[in-house]
Amino acid sequence: MTDRLTPGATIGILGGGQLGRMLSVAASRLGFKTHIYEPGANPPAGQVAHTVTTAPYEDEAALRAFAASVDVITYEFENIPTSALDILEAIRPIRPGRTALAVSQDRLSEKTFLRDLGLMTAPFADVASKADLAAALETIGAPAILKTRRFGYDGKGQARIMALNDAASAYADMAGAPSILEGFVNFSHEVSVIGARALNGSVACFDPGENVHLNGILHTTTVPARLSPSQRSDAILIAAKILNALDYVGVMGVELFVTAEGLVVNEIAPRVHNSGHWTQNGCVIDQFEQHIRAVAGWPLGDGSRHSNVVMENLIGEDVARIPQIAETCTAIHLYGKAKAKPGRKMGHINRIVGPAKG
Amino acid sequence: MTDRLTPGATIGILGGGQLGRMLSVAASRLGFKTHIYEPGANPPAGQVAHTVTTAPYEDEAALRAFAASVDVITYEFENIPTSALDILEAIRPIRPGRTALAVSQDRLSEKTFLRDLGLMTAPFADVASKADLAAALETIGAPAILKTRRFGYDGKGQARIMALNDAASAYADMAGAPSILEGFVNFSHEVSVIGARALNGSVACFDPGENVHLNGILHTTTVPARLSPSQRSDAILIAAKILNALDYVGVMGVELFVTAEGLVVNEIAPRVHNSGHWTQNGCVIDQFEQHIRAVAGWPLGDGSRHSNVVMENLIGEDVARIPQIAETCTAIHLYGKAKAKPGRKMGHINRIVGPAKG
Repeated sequence: MTDRLTPGATIGILGGGQLGRMLSVAASRLGFKTHIYEPGANPPAGQVAHTVTTAPYEDEAALRAFAASVDVITYEFENIPTSALDILEAIRPIRPGRTALAVSQDRLSEKTFLRDLGLMTAPFADVASKADLAAALETIGAPAILKTRRFGYDGKGQARIMALNDAASAYADMAGAPSILEGFVNFSHEVSVIGARALNGSVACFDPGENVHLNGILHTTTVPARLSPSQRSDAILIAAKILNALDYVGVMGVELFVTAEGLVVNEIAPRVHNSGHWTQNGCVIDQFEQHIRAVAGWPLGDGSRHSNVVMENLIGEDVARIPQIAETCTAIHLYGKAKAKPGRKMGHINRIVGPAKG
Repeated sequence: MTDRLTPGATIGILGGGQLGRMLSVAASRLGFKTHIYEPGANPPAGQVAHTVTTAPYEDEAALRAFAASVDVITYEFENIPTSALDILEAIRPIRPGRTALAVSQDRLSEKTFLRDLGLMTAPFADVASKADLAAALETIGAPAILKTRRFGYDGKGQARIMALNDAASAYADMAGAPSILEGFVNFSHEVSVIGARALNGSVACFDPGENVHLNGILHTTTVPARLSPSQRSDAILIAAKILNALDYVGVMGVELFVTAEGLVVNEIAPRVHNSGHWTQNGCVIDQFEQHIRAVAGWPLGDGSRHSNVVMENLIGEDVARIPQIAETCTAIHLYGKAKAKPGRKMGHINRIVGPAKG
C-alpha cells in the first residue's frame, strides 16, 4: 500500500450518518469505493456506499474484517471508542490520526491544547467533584456552563449556571461524569473555518462562514461572514496553526467567537462539519471531497468560493417545507432518513445569494 | 402513488454505467433511493446505489420485480429492448416516455420527426436495399455517411462513402441492418443544448456547450460556446420545440451543427448527455439533478451558469494522467471502472476557466 490511493481503492468510514453519506458521494467522484461501519441498521450513508457493515464498536471480528477490506479508515464523528480505534489502527491507517481524536474527544484536553498553542479560549476549569465546581465558580464566576468532558454534541450534556445557586442542579445533571466548567465569552457572533491539511503538510482553508444556532443546534451558516480583512486572516491562521500542531490529515471544523479582544476558539471538530455544508454549492471542490483527497493522500483541491451562500439546516419537520423550497433557486441536500423527529437533522439547503465578490 | 415523489421514494434506473452512477448521486441529494437494473456484473452505478439487479433485459421475472420495487423508471441509454419496456410500463411510469424512445432509437424516425417539426437536418434517405443506396446516392451525392438505423453510438455502425465506388463496401459494413444514408453538412462547429422539461410542461435549458470530437468520441465541451446571441436563442428554442413536441419529461441532449444557413439538428439523445457533464461544476443544479427532478415530478431547479468550464473526457489510458490533473484547479469525476480499455470512457474533468460573464 502506497501513501497515495489510486482510483478503485476503498475508503472505510466509521459512522453512517449524513456526513458519511456525503463523504461517500465525494469519494465516488474520485473513483473510490466506500465501506461504511455503523452499528445502526439502514444508515443514510448505506444508500450510496459500496459496502455496509452493521455491527457495534465492540465487535472485534467485525472491526478486523472491516479494516482488512479497506485501504484507509476515516470517520464522520469523533466519539469512537478507544478500544475500537486500537484494533483498527493495527490493521490500516486512521486519518485524521489518534492525536486529533484524543484532543477533541475530551473538552478539557481540547481547551488545554488550544491554550498551550497560545490561542484564546473561554476561561475553563476541570470539575471532578462538587468541591472542584465550587472552586471553579469562584475563579470563573457566573454565568458559566458546566459540560461533560466527553460525548457531548448539539447542546447535549450541558447545564447553564446563571447564578451560584444553580451549581448543585447543574452538577447533578452531569450524573457523575467528569466535567469542565467554562466561563461565558462576550462575543458578537460566531464564525467557523473549515480547514484541510494534506498528507504532505499543505493546508487549504475555505472562507470563514458565520453561524447562527437555534436551540443549541446550528441553524444557518452565511458566507461571507462579517469579518474585517484582518479578522479573516486571523481566523485562517488560527485554523492552520491547529492543523499543523496536530500533524493533521483531513478536514477540520474550527468554531471561533468574534470578540473585541480578538478571536476566541470555541471548539474544534476533527471531521467534516455542518458549518461547511455551504461549500457544496459555493465552491468547485467541497469540504467532503477535500477530506477524501486528504485521507487518500491526494493533493488538496481548489476550494475557492464562487458564490455567496446561506446554508440552512432542516431540523425535524422543517423537511415538510421541501415542496416550497424546490420552487426556489436553492440547492437541496436530504439525508435519506426515514422519519422526521424533533431535533433530528433531516437535510440542509444552500440558497445562492449571488456571485462571490472579487 | 402521486405524480410528485416524496423523499424516501425509489427511482429505478435502467443501465448501470457512468450516467446511471451520476444520476444515482443526484437522486441521493434529493433524498431518493435508486435501484439499478443492469445485465453486466459490478456496474459503476452500483457503487453508489441502494439496490442493484443484475439480470438481462429478457428476464421477465426480474423486470417485474424491479418495476414493483420502484416508484418511477428512467434510463441512462436509449437502446432498451421494446419487450422489456412493455413489461416495465405496465407496472410503473417510464420517464422520459415511449414516444421519445421510439423516435430516438431509430435514426430514420428521428430525422423524419425533426424534419416534420420544421427543423433543419442533414439530407437523408432510407436504405433498405442496395438499390435504395444507389438511388439515395444519386439524390444526396458523395461524400455521405451510411449508418444503421438502430443501436449506433460513438461512431459505431457507420461507414463513410467518400466516392460512389465506396458504396458496396459501406453497404456490406451494415451487415444487412436497415440503414439510413445521410449527406454531409458543411458546418463550422458543433454545439449541444441540454434541455429539461418537467411533468408540468415547464422547460429549462442549460447554456449551449461547444463540442469537439476525437475518433468519433466526444473529447471536450466548452462553455460558453461560440454563438451569436441570436444563434444562442435559436439553439434553445430548437431544444424547447423538440421537448414540447414529444411531451417530454426529463433531460435531453440536442446536438446542433452551426452552419451559415442556421442550426442543423444532428441528433437527439433522450437522457443525460456527455456534453452536459460541465454542468456539475458550472451550475448549482446540474443535468443529473435536473433529470431526477423532472422524472420525480418536481419543479426544475436553477440551471444558470456561474462559471466558464472546459469539460474533457478521459478515454482509456487518459486516466493515468489523474495524479497530474489532481494538482490543478480542476474537478475530477471518475466512474469506478476497474479496467482502462482503448475507447472506454473512464471519467471526465471539468476545468474551471473563470467566472461566467453577466
